[in-house]
Amino acid sequence: MNNNSVTVGVLGPEGSYSQEAAMQYFGKCIVNSEYLSPQAVIRDVSLSGINYGVVPVENSIQGGVYSTLDALLASDVRIAGEVVLPVSHVLACHADAIAFRRVLSHEQALEQCRDYLNAEYPGCVLEQTASTSHAAMIAGEGLLDALVVCSRYAAGLYGLRVIAEDIASSNNNETRFLVVGNGLTEPTGNDKTSIVISLVDKPGALYQALGVFYKHGINLTWVLSRPTKKKLGEYVFPVDFEGHVDDMVVKSALRELKEYATDIRVLGSYPKSIKKTSCSDGVR
Amino acid sequence: MNNNSVTVGVLGPEGSYSQEAAMQYFGKCIVNSEYLSPQAVIRDVSLSGINYGVVPVENSIQGGVYSTLDALLASDVRIAGEVVLPVSHVLACHADAIAFRRVLSHEQALEQCRDYLNAEYPGCVLEQTASTSHAAMIAGEGLLDALVVCSRYAAGLYGLRVIAEDIASSNNNETRFLVVGNGLTEPTGNDKTSIVISLVDKPGALYQALGVFYKHGINLTWVLSRPTKKKLGEYVFPVDFEGHVDDMVVKSALRELKEYATDIRVLGSYPKSIKKTSCSDGVR
Repeated sequence: MNNNSVTVGVLGPEGSYSQEAAMQYFGKCIVNSEYLSPQAVIRDVSLSGINYGVVPVENSIQGGVYSTLDALLASDVRIAGEVVLPVSHVLACHADAIAFRRVLSHEQALEQCRDYLNAEYPGCVLEQTASTSHAAMIAGEGLLDALVVCSRYAAGLYGLRVIAEDIASSNNNETRFLVVGNGLTEPTGNDKTSIVISLVDKPGALYQALGVFYKHGINLTWVLSRPTKKKLGEYVFPVDFEGHVDDMVVKSALRELKEYATDIRVLGSYPKSIKKTSCSDGVR
Repeated sequence: MNNNSVTVGVLGPEGSYSQEAAMQYFGKCIVNSEYLSPQAVIRDVSLSGINYGVVPVENSIQGGVYSTLDALLASDVRIAGEVVLPVSHVLACHADAIAFRRVLSHEQALEQCRDYLNAEYPGCVLEQTASTSHAAMIAGEGLLDALVVCSRYAAGLYGLRVIAEDIASSNNNETRFLVVGNGLTEPTGNDKTSIVISLVDKPGALYQALGVFYKHGINLTWVLSRPTKKKLGEYVFPVDFEGHVDDMVVKSALRELKEYATDIRVLGSYPKSIKKTSCSDGVR
């Protein structure tokens, strides 16, 4: 695998945080930032239209990015890596804009800045765009009544004027992205594994499932619940833990876990957190 | 307490699902549907501007309503009850509308219908409004380029034409609402309790915390994780379980739970699920 053969898909257009995360993870590879949603990225990885995708999965203010998670759960792609990106939103507008009646951005960014926007621009309508960079692009094309929440880089890229900086509800705004592909990733000795557990329907099932990890000395790093979408109150449990599915202790734990689960799906084992790499050795 | 003295605040304007939930729970009480957000409802309950608020907390397709949950966690109001409402969204528009360039609705409703909207109206911009009924109201005032996702009732109320019915991603679309107030609720023998646990920072803390409930024979009905908003990967755990804080077994469990928690906050004990009542005996 060399630099010319690897294609990485991200939510676009150019200037999205996903693109920044992909550049950070893969270095100077071919990044296709024409995708309209993380779901579309995941779909194209699954169909092998691209080698990898980089999609947001967790934010320090908002928690899980559930649209990404639900698309992952419904797909057969594998997680091959992760990268954490500090996120700093600016408020920007077209250079000629004077009065504002709306704020454009991705739904997650609008939500992260909701406190600021409600306080400073209570009269503005919040308008969802496919990405923060999409908002910046269309504002740059000539929207004179719109504010935009995007990265400083995207604001510069599309010639916008920056009005305010760091407008999110917390100073510690970080987003974790997943690198998704189709193959398995070999153990590095510093790995994480993501699985989804469908529990048997009896009291204490979650407790007993978590106990399997505890007894095996496996550290859980994320426990979530996502609706089955079939019935109110019915959930599956995405769980991240330290270790690789090829580790003996993880194999043993997953075997024991079957006692408390109707289904266990391994989404992937992959190196923890960011690894700055070139395309040739980034992901195996 | 009689019908004339109880005021209930909900997300408005008239025709919101929250209003429907309030009517179902309280019967014909004074419902103030002028609030612009569940957060504003919770704030006014906290300031004793109104006796109760009714706010959405869980949906069968979308899972937790995190904006409500986060507002509850940041406030001192108490949960006094819950009501489950079947939700059926229609797609509607002004009677004279022909071409559409945008879809207006509450962010949760847009998300619940995202599959349908992406497939049928890929060119439309999704525009967030404060509520589904707010979208219906402004479309009725003369927006000829807008589609609206709202209840059939709201569409009728604002004179809209219904184009499609039941457009959510699942047929089992139900929303659970919380009734919030300031007082404590007496045991009825069929209660639930909602708490938020901040865990001690050591491996297995969640497992051991859940074990306290298991060992006491207390059934958990909902386990969530919400970010502390301070650091990526740092969470608190809202937990719902069967029983009332005045029950001996619950008191004993909460006492033991302190071993694994840096903080435990009781959000309320309240009768399970819907109870059709009049204002005079609805909530104590």
